[in-house]
Amino acid sequence: MKENNSIGIVKPKIFKCTSPIKLSCGKTLDNYELIYETYGKLNKNKDNAVLVCHALTGNQHVAGRHKKIDKYPGWWDSLVGPGKPLNTNKFFVIGINNLGGNEGSTGPKSINPKTKKIWGADFPIITVEDWVKTQKTLINYLGIDKLSSVIGGSLGGMQALEWNIQFPYEVNNTVVIAAAPNLTAQNIAFNQVARQSIITDPDFQKGNFYASKNKPKRGLRIARMLGHITYLSNDVMGSKFGRKTKNKEYQFNFDTEFEIESYLNYQGDKFANEFDANTYIRMTKALDYYDPTKKNKKKLSEVFKKIKSKFLVISFTSDWRFSSSRSKEIVKGLLDNNINVSYAEISAESGHDAFLMSDNHYHEIIKSFFNRIFKS
Amino acid sequence: MKENNSIGIVKPKIFKCTSPIKLSCGKTLDNYELIYETYGKLNKNKDNAVLVCHALTGNQHVAGRHKKIDKYPGWWDSLVGPGKPLNTNKFFVIGINNLGGNEGSTGPKSINPKTKKIWGADFPIITVEDWVKTQKTLINYLGIDKLSSVIGGSLGGMQALEWNIQFPYEVNNTVVIAAAPNLTAQNIAFNQVARQSIITDPDFQKGNFYASKNKPKRGLRIARMLGHITYLSNDVMGSKFGRKTKNKEYQFNFDTEFEIESYLNYQGDKFANEFDANTYIRMTKALDYYDPTKKNKKKLSEVFKKIKSKFLVISFTSDWRFSSSRSKEIVKGLLDNNINVSYAEISAESGHDAFLMSDNHYHEIIKSFFNRIFKS
Repeated sequence: MKENNSIGIVKPKIFKCTSPIKLSCGKTLDNYELIYETYGKLNKNKDNAVLVCHALTGNQHVAGRHKKIDKYPGWWDSLVGPGKPLNTNKFFVIGINNLGGNEGSTGPKSINPKTKKIWGADFPIITVEDWVKTQKTLINYLGIDKLSSVIGGSLGGMQALEWNIQFPYEVNNTVVIAAAPNLTAQNIAFNQVARQSIITDPDFQKGNFYASKNKPKRGLRIARMLGHITYLSNDVMGSKFGRKTKNKEYQFNFDTEFEIESYLNYQGDKFANEFDANTYIRMTKALDYYDPTKKNKKKLSEVFKKIKSKFLVISFTSDWRFSSSRSKEIVKGLLDNNINVSYAEISAESGHDAFLMSDNHYHEIIKSFFNRIFKS
Repeated sequence: MKENNSIGIVKPKIFKCTSPIKLSCGKTLDNYELIYETYGKLNKNKDNAVLVCHALTGNQHVAGRHKKIDKYPGWWDSLVGPGKPLNTNKFFVIGINNLGGNEGSTGPKSINPKTKKIWGADFPIITVEDWVKTQKTLINYLGIDKLSSVIGGSLGGMQALEWNIQFPYEVNNTVVIAAAPNLTAQNIAFNQVARQSIITDPDFQKGNFYASKNKPKRGLRIARMLGHITYLSNDVMGSKFGRKTKNKEYQFNFDTEFEIESYLNYQGDKFANEFDANTYIRMTKALDYYDPTKKNKKKLSEVFKKIKSKFLVISFTSDWRFSSSRSKEIVKGLLDNNINVSYAEISAESGHDAFLMSDNHYHEIIKSFFNRIFKS
């Protein structure tokens, strides 16, 4: 067993897809690349593949480290590895950076083959449905006809759900965590403020800022600060930061006064230096647009009619971004179709971010769900 | 009785205070002006004066119209007027635009008498404590020794509370609506994002933008859009806007797609053209700083020890900006001191904004509280 049960050093790979994809928006990409990582081994029956779908700002780097010196492992390293809830001794786990993503998959920073220039503002808006299509193409390229499982949290949970709507015969098990069947008006409202802060940043330059020395960092910083408020619960913000001040007495100026301000500034600055603004605004659009009931002009129960997979749906008590009531809508839609679904509402203080944490109860439930698969 | 029970045409007045005020931040203003309005008549005993304190972006124009053609009356016209819950046939009602405000009281847009230039960035941060001090000076100038009542919602409720802490012998009745004894970390977090969006707008020019043709409208717009999310409940956003789109099919671009986006854009644009950015960031600071327990280095119950006034505390079920639990902290602090307090948690869908609405149950409770005053 490796140190700390980690998968160890991993290396991203590139999938070059030369067959065109017709996108939801109507445009076609003639070819594209996806960065992906795999952990564990595909078995002889090729029935142990698990696709991990990422959320808003996630990527293909789910577990392990790229280099020994990396400060942090992949974003779901607590869940994925040898002997971990998603056990790479048993499962072949695949992480993909979504089309349009920030980590090297074809996106706004890539070269448009038709113009030989950076896509920038011209890069199309990609939807959850498009992602699932491209993920399916990559899965097939890896020699897998059918996924043992698909799992995702937040926007990743929407992709896991969509796999079952588009390809009901190609998924055996599904884990949807801290997700919703679509966004509420309040969710869209937060996304709109984030997008407007980026789009109205003069350095955004209508999305064509790559050749310029000025990047829209101000707007991206505000968007990320706002995001972090919605990732945490009111309670956890209170217990972590409360009204703690940097200095004993108030300074009566506009410098950082409260510790919560330091936290947000730090998160905003870090993100603004790392993430692509065009990708960010498109990812929020994918969230806004996802709505299988609108697309299929049917109620959720009817949309779920063809689903074959077994489901595990998980929500967290303090998540106000995607509250438990939204997960229950999914559960109801599944039950209406006599689909095998387990639902767990986990007591957690940390809000939406809880899906990335390693709460014992939460991880045990996922572990049981996966352990069951090769028991029968 | 006037049309629609309105107070009719009203005219703002100016109070020029020539005695200096030492502010909480340590600086002194040698003199200042406050814009104010009054409705009804001060009686012979001078015991019917009610001070209405305004919230974040409010002003002295509480009721009536400045001109017949004004589209909207004052911001609390539904509550204040002849025969209304705060009955101007009985009470002499005073509205004051707080020091540093947007409507003509001395503030960042005013001339600094020492430099003969616009204050801009040099205008000090004003606190709730400072406002109450200046309000007291104006009340005394009007010949009133003791207020019959002080009433306010949100940040206005904090002022009503502070009146009782600073001047416990000068208030008989207090109404604190949709308020809190201090901000939570989440409240401060939202304020910080709003401030940072303004401060990092290049047109803010460190607060000295008055001589420039560019005003920090982008930042102010984002701040206001964000504010509006916190003023409404998730439920009312859902029932008002839901996932309604402007067009039948998605447009797959960054124009306005959902009706909630239109609403926020409209509110943001309108506010950015009307409000002063330096005032806005200072008002949010007043909110952040207010914390009588910190200032007095005592628990809330101890801070309330000298209070003499009768209290009415009101909160709204769907208010997540200042939730009912925060109002209950105030109630508990008052009860700990055997203070006469009535508390009402009003069932309302509209969130924090409910304090401005004319819900029947809500207004009846306020009406009863005021009616009682001249009964005995």
